[in-house]
Amino acid sequence: MATHQKQALAPEPGDSYVQSFARGLQVIRSFSASAPRQTLSEVAEATGLTRAGARRILLTLQTLGYVDNDGKHFALTPRILDLGFAYLSSMPIWNRAEPVMEALVRQVQESCSAAVLDATDIVYVMRVPTQKIMRIGLGVGSRLPAYCTSMGRLLLADLGADELRARLEGSALEACTRHTVTDIDALVAKVAQARRQGWCLVNQELEEGLISIAAPIVDRTGRTVAALNISGQANRTSARLMQESMLPALLASAQEISRML
Amino acid sequence: MATHQKQALAPEPGDSYVQSFARGLQVIRSFSASAPRQTLSEVAEATGLTRAGARRILLTLQTLGYVDNDGKHFALTPRILDLGFAYLSSMPIWNRAEPVMEALVRQVQESCSAAVLDATDIVYVMRVPTQKIMRIGLGVGSRLPAYCTSMGRLLLADLGADELRARLEGSALEACTRHTVTDIDALVAKVAQARRQGWCLVNQELEEGLISIAAPIVDRTGRTVAALNISGQANRTSARLMQESMLPALLASAQEISRML
Repeated sequence: MATHQKQALAPEPGDSYVQSFARGLQVIRSFSASAPRQTLSEVAEATGLTRAGARRILLTLQTLGYVDNDGKHFALTPRILDLGFAYLSSMPIWNRAEPVMEALVRQVQESCSAAVLDATDIVYVMRVPTQKIMRIGLGVGSRLPAYCTSMGRLLLADLGADELRARLEGSALEACTRHTVTDIDALVAKVAQARRQGWCLVNQELEEGLISIAAPIVDRTGRTVAALNISGQANRTSARLMQESMLPALLASAQEISRML
Repeated sequence: MATHQKQALAPEPGDSYVQSFARGLQVIRSFSASAPRQTLSEVAEATGLTRAGARRILLTLQTLGYVDNDGKHFALTPRILDLGFAYLSSMPIWNRAEPVMEALVRQVQESCSAAVLDATDIVYVMRVPTQKIMRIGLGVGSRLPAYCTSMGRLLLADLGADELRARLEGSALEACTRHTVTDIDALVAKVAQARRQGWCLVNQELEEGLISIAAPIVDRTGRTVAALNISGQANRTSARLMQESMLPALLASAQEISRML
């Protein structure tokens, strides 16, 4: 406690606190599917920290049980899930939405997901896969760019005009496929269309062969707080078929979840 | 950087670093289903921090985009899921295990989950629910005590005798139901039985009406790295029926996943 108070009297206490905490989180985020186990040097290189700084944070994380160390390599432990779980369990809506989404998947025989907006990305908060062989490997916590996804465009549609343009300008607008719209004015028009019609279909702009249709989850004040989607494969279905045969059920499910809010 | 190095020369630099980082994580974990949005005072009370300390951490988290603030209330943002959740919830092994688990669920028509051990708890890393109405509401990242769960006893069975006893002594051994074994020697015997037979059945020790049977997921060195279970309702099935009709399929699935390691 004494140390803590002494820090509070230091010249830039806020900054130093922000920095040490931010560095810790940065070390956690340096572990990924492509770097599940890292040496001290690898963590230092990935985060731009000194070896001494990286070591101190890794040992801190180990003391707290978030990192394991086999002598040479460090790896995250499942205790890390407590942090994301705090967020997900603080949104009880998704527990109640899951059966609605499962019923939708049974009806349309395609995968259903829910996502929220974070800056220029969408973040998956719930996923109900179909039991077909070809599936889309996106777990809870996965991110995709908002500008080229159906859920992203619907979530962007809830922003004001200036904020929408700022987010699009802040996005790395890449042509993921030959169909991807990357022009800002054209994207603003696509987003306006999604707002007007109350749903959004994106046809192979994220990935060749992938069609996705989304509906908004709206709270009592009329704000779009999340989006629900169905995604299908172009070789099994067409955009027109998805719109005709699946959109009514998708809209009904999104409204059912909205009423729980 | 200067501040950082000064801290390193302070009397107990490691402790102060551990403490500030631990307090930040503690603030994240103070948000939950029962406290999704909290005022500064509520966070201070929940974590035992001073108001000034809690404010500094909340503002740090807000600066880093992990917390939102509407003026009065603070809430976690989905960015929290970046902290290892996306990585762990999509660990390549579990992506590959998921179709195996789905096939098992189709075969036995009961829910299937996978969990790992963290100190005295099991933590769910994958869950494939059945589409029956009565389901067990446990998502990825959920925790249950190891001593009274089938997956927990199998995971404890991989520990040495001293470590096993230490974990059991460190557990809050509560009688969750009238069937729960809470005596340490009796639990050591149950764990030894699970080790000998290579599977574990727990009959209504966690919850009245809930029967669970687990099999180990074993890596190439023979260590049990995770457990796979099927859980059913006592009013639909019996312990004997689960063992006779589902255990062979469960063991086959666990072996199939083990071979992927």
